[in-house]
Amino acid sequence: MSTMMLDLPGGGYPIHIGSDLLSHPDLLSAPVGRGKVAIITNEVVAPLYLDRLMASLARFKPTVVVVPDGEQQKTLVTIDRIVGELLAARCDRGTTLFALGGGVVGDMTGFAAAVYQRGVSFVQVPTTLLSQVDSSVGGKTGVNHAFGKNMIGCFYQPKAVIIDTGTLSTLPDRELSAGIAEIIKYGAIGDAAFFAWLEAHMDELLARAPSALAWAIETSCRNKAAVVQADEKESGVRALLNFGHTFGHAIETAMGYGAWLHGEAVAVGMVMAARLSRHMGLLSAEEFGRLERLVERARLPTRAPAIEAERFLDLMAVDKKAQGGQMHFVLLRALGDAFLTKDVGQEALRGVLAQSHSQAVAGRDL
Amino acid sequence: MSTMMLDLPGGGYPIHIGSDLLSHPDLLSAPVGRGKVAIITNEVVAPLYLDRLMASLARFKPTVVVVPDGEQQKTLVTIDRIVGELLAARCDRGTTLFALGGGVVGDMTGFAAAVYQRGVSFVQVPTTLLSQVDSSVGGKTGVNHAFGKNMIGCFYQPKAVIIDTGTLSTLPDRELSAGIAEIIKYGAIGDAAFFAWLEAHMDELLARAPSALAWAIETSCRNKAAVVQADEKESGVRALLNFGHTFGHAIETAMGYGAWLHGEAVAVGMVMAARLSRHMGLLSAEEFGRLERLVERARLPTRAPAIEAERFLDLMAVDKKAQGGQMHFVLLRALGDAFLTKDVGQEALRGVLAQSHSQAVAGRDL
Repeated sequence: MSTMMLDLPGGGYPIHIGSDLLSHPDLLSAPVGRGKVAIITNEVVAPLYLDRLMASLARFKPTVVVVPDGEQQKTLVTIDRIVGELLAARCDRGTTLFALGGGVVGDMTGFAAAVYQRGVSFVQVPTTLLSQVDSSVGGKTGVNHAFGKNMIGCFYQPKAVIIDTGTLSTLPDRELSAGIAEIIKYGAIGDAAFFAWLEAHMDELLARAPSALAWAIETSCRNKAAVVQADEKESGVRALLNFGHTFGHAIETAMGYGAWLHGEAVAVGMVMAARLSRHMGLLSAEEFGRLERLVERARLPTRAPAIEAERFLDLMAVDKKAQGGQMHFVLLRALGDAFLTKDVGQEALRGVLAQSHSQAVAGRDL
Repeated sequence: MSTMMLDLPGGGYPIHIGSDLLSHPDLLSAPVGRGKVAIITNEVVAPLYLDRLMASLARFKPTVVVVPDGEQQKTLVTIDRIVGELLAARCDRGTTLFALGGGVVGDMTGFAAAVYQRGVSFVQVPTTLLSQVDSSVGGKTGVNHAFGKNMIGCFYQPKAVIIDTGTLSTLPDRELSAGIAEIIKYGAIGDAAFFAWLEAHMDELLARAPSALAWAIETSCRNKAAVVQADEKESGVRALLNFGHTFGHAIETAMGYGAWLHGEAVAVGMVMAARLSRHMGLLSAEEFGRLERLVERARLPTRAPAIEAERFLDLMAVDKKAQGGQMHFVLLRALGDAFLTKDVGQEALRGVLAQSHSQAVAGRDL
């Protein structure tokens, strides 16, 4: 097991990474205060891992809330239901919530913890690669609104993040790839050596080699923790983590939540942002090609669905990253060297969007 | 106009009190950043004061969201609607929300600000006496759940509180009295001199004498600000502000939100908490009598509706102030001397509840 600390002014917390951590009662009990425990999970994860977590937390006699699976569940309606079940179980302000599941469960549980009786503790126990390397670390919590993804939420940090890499054995291939998208992101925005390591070890990751996965998760968490420590509330450098997300969120909104996995939309978004960087003369064709190839090798999409340029712009303008009506983009000067800008050539942007649309409509590679 | 500052580690804010402040563009514009402005109000307040606020904020071309009136609107459903209207108006993270209305509008707007795109600024413009002396100051925001009042929320401070005492001219008598309940509370829990002043000036307050109202509001805000500064997140002394609220919330829940005004339930709750203090031998009969009389003179109820003792206990146990299954009560040693305890004589408590129930059933004073 490896443990790193994420240090923040409001109090830091440990990120534990290892196999079979779900069977470590001491590790799981450490963040629990004197109050009750409630586990929030979903219908897919519960049959796989709930028993083990329940056994490890048995002395707290946890309340369990099982929600349906899927991004479309990530709404205030589900928050209302979770709050209702916590109230029915007489959970008070001393309660600790455990999020057992992927990013949707983690985001909702964190938000429920942030607002339940004006704030209770919570612990992240992510069971998907994407949530292990991204959403469980850093305290972004929230739900979607019909008009936009993650539009309702708080910055609210967990008491601990406990990553059991053993849970990846049951992860569908498509979700494994979606998680790798965020792993590639850390290399692309700030860690060229890690990007090169990923190029050398992609086949091992796809084959779920434990040591390769553990290293990729650790390196991703270390990158994420460094950025969150530098900028907890995303007033600066943290925005770099949104590389690929402005395009990606637009795709998710256009297609309806859940049709595309978040990691898949981010994968296409990264390729589009890199193409925009290339069109603006920032990124070399060679480095653009390396990114596109690595995304492809991770069995991720590199092409957006058919969305007309004007509609794409419209969807991106609603994104939270839009400030004062101006869109912000994370662009690349090189692999491992990202920067945030609102100074994007409109012609280059429309060119990328028009090309994407015509490729999608034609269904062929131009 | 008088101005006091509420100083907090995360940044303080001014509380301005005066007549006709709605017509001070400079005062109202000061807390606005470079982004958009949105005003959240309700159907009762909008026809009375929206035009004046719109005129003062005209240069920001505010978006307006008008919600129906009433405590039963204070739900996640309304938050979802407010978020939707803000998104439709392309309000970004630089937006400032203005809460124009009473406690319900203020609590919901504050919560919407806390969670909209993970947090935007907001300004309280309270138009009821209760919200001017209590809920607009201190950063408690949130909504109700079907199973309990204020069970979903955050601590989230406004950028400014702007109290136009002129808005009280249109306040219904019943709501004026409800506001006076919270004013009496400040005297009862920590300011014996203010309590005596209220005894001497209750008739002026009911007659809405401007100077008496202004003094009562100022003194209440000063008391509240001092408590919030000492304990922003209610880990200690701030809990004293809940005097009368454990009983009061149970009444509100039992009767359904909106049937009793919050101040009315708190008025009865204060009398019940004082009676409990007396039964436990803490408070003199004379001081109990002074509190009960002052509540009566404020044209507030002093008797609970018919709720059986067991049900009352049950309703109180769900209250947020319950910790580890134990109920906390704010009791009085004397007028102006409150303290928090979980060490309440069960016999005395059941006695107070049984007496309350039999009085209500009998409809007469025992």
